[in-house]
Amino acid sequence: MDASVTPLRHGGLSLVQTTDFFYPLVDDPYMMGKITCANVLSDLYAMGVTDCDNMLMLLGVSTKMSDKERDVVVPMMMRGFKDLAEEAGTSVTGGQTVLNPWLTIGGVATTVCQPNEFIMPDNAVVGDVLVLTKPLGTQVAVNAYQWLDQPERWNRIKLVVTEDDVRKAYQRAMFSMARLNRTAARLMHKFNAHGATDVTGFGLLGHAKNLASIQKNEVSFVIHNLPIIAKMAAISKACGNMFGLLQGQSAETSGGLLIALPREQAAAFCKDIEKTEGYQSWIIGIVEKGNRTARIIDKPRVIEVPAKDREGELW
Amino acid sequence: MDASVTPLRHGGLSLVQTTDFFYPLVDDPYMMGKITCANVLSDLYAMGVTDCDNMLMLLGVSTKMSDKERDVVVPMMMRGFKDLAEEAGTSVTGGQTVLNPWLTIGGVATTVCQPNEFIMPDNAVVGDVLVLTKPLGTQVAVNAYQWLDQPERWNRIKLVVTEDDVRKAYQRAMFSMARLNRTAARLMHKFNAHGATDVTGFGLLGHAKNLASIQKNEVSFVIHNLPIIAKMAAISKACGNMFGLLQGQSAETSGGLLIALPREQAAAFCKDIEKTEGYQSWIIGIVEKGNRTARIIDKPRVIEVPAKDREGELW
Repeated sequence: MDASVTPLRHGGLSLVQTTDFFYPLVDDPYMMGKITCANVLSDLYAMGVTDCDNMLMLLGVSTKMSDKERDVVVPMMMRGFKDLAEEAGTSVTGGQTVLNPWLTIGGVATTVCQPNEFIMPDNAVVGDVLVLTKPLGTQVAVNAYQWLDQPERWNRIKLVVTEDDVRKAYQRAMFSMARLNRTAARLMHKFNAHGATDVTGFGLLGHAKNLASIQKNEVSFVIHNLPIIAKMAAISKACGNMFGLLQGQSAETSGGLLIALPREQAAAFCKDIEKTEGYQSWIIGIVEKGNRTARIIDKPRVIEVPAKDREGELW
Repeated sequence: MDASVTPLRHGGLSLVQTTDFFYPLVDDPYMMGKITCANVLSDLYAMGVTDCDNMLMLLGVSTKMSDKERDVVVPMMMRGFKDLAEEAGTSVTGGQTVLNPWLTIGGVATTVCQPNEFIMPDNAVVGDVLVLTKPLGTQVAVNAYQWLDQPERWNRIKLVVTEDDVRKAYQRAMFSMARLNRTAARLMHKFNAHGATDVTGFGLLGHAKNLASIQKNEVSFVIHNLPIIAKMAAISKACGNMFGLLQGQSAETSGGLLIALPREQAAAFCKDIEKTEGYQSWIIGIVEKGNRTARIIDKPRVIEVPAKDREGELW
């Protein structure tokens, strides 16, 4: 499960809690703070929790930064983290900072729930469909953006993408990673979701396998469609598949929720989330009888998700 | 305050939560895990919380360890952390690990409380006395122990201590740091404590000042007695006072609780804790009228706390 659930001594309540920290991957400290916050909260949202009661921030400040860098970068990261916490209706009441050569940033998200306020992830049934709420390709976009300054790397992909493609994809990835999965968590209740997980470091297939493995019913997940930030599939191919993006192996940061929904509710779920937020979700697969595994079909359909989605409003 | 207190949406309950992580300071990974767990929980105990509902573990695993070192050290640290969590009546349900050049270890402790289950730290009144539940000098003991292998350092202190003194003090410090402040938290309720804090990185005086600064009443803290692990005061003096131990400035790890208690209850508190645990506590100061500061008198009485305290039972 994405978050730990601990029954409390008080009237049927449960403590739902998660922690995560990692290394910065975008060059804007403020956005990095937001991404971290979204990523931590995502574990709660995957459990259908919509309200986080409290957050803590965990910082590993780099010894390699100059005093000036530190004084600029750290407050901006903290600001981003706090601002997104506020957007999520929660607040940051504490935390801890230590020095280490490598910069790390993370947090803890905690909520106290009644049983109907969270959704256990293990109730998928044959006939459900799988919905994904953010496009794949964040890692490829972040790497490609870094390669703009590394001619050797850039030469490998410049035949399939322009610099402008990469900058747009990077922006798209950054705002996608900083977007909360909260609306999706709310709609999981409305549309009777049977379970969900959030797609992060193990890639789509890794997390699909994890989710499949804990199911109560004898089911398996089959994925047919891969919604991917525009041009990132081409980059992944041009790199001789080093990311494994089309195999669902490319790591994502603060990715979408992968949700098992009753077939007849899934389209309405996707429509509702788009109406509320202006972002697409996709039906990417089905739940069939099986032995609790997950796979991607041989030739999945790649859905190119344009980088200009809501561009006008966001950047 | 040592822990954050967040009112919850559910029937008068509050979320009390804290996080802490730092670098290893003893050479026994199992004990290091225990010390970390005791240190994290101590923030809850300082609030009079006796039951922790859930813990998370935070590990920064060093990239400089060989695979073999990592495979031995990390599980032992985790084991120590979990074992002490169990002793404290709680459990570790999750956490996160990242790589970094410097090893760090820490955790998160969370509990959900009714109002009578925690004690706000800001109610000290004139006439209270201050009790300390563990001896000072952990940092000096840990450093002196490391200096056994550094002739240049060792030469500075070998006139005032023997190698055996240092080994005993180190052992005493290690077991003191790994000891829970839970009994003290329980007895804070029984003896009507008016507030407490735990003594850690800012040293006795630093934490006394913090606690004084948040008081509701116009009070100040005056400290007369310094219970110190045997011989550590002598080492601190021999080092030209670089630790500031006698000035209350020496950092402590997982130190005791500093508690403001009604004068007529303090002796009974100390007796009770000794009866329950076999460890001494000390009345170290008084609360007088003042402007929310703290100080140590000019020539405080140093209480040498023998290293052999409960030796037979513990090591």
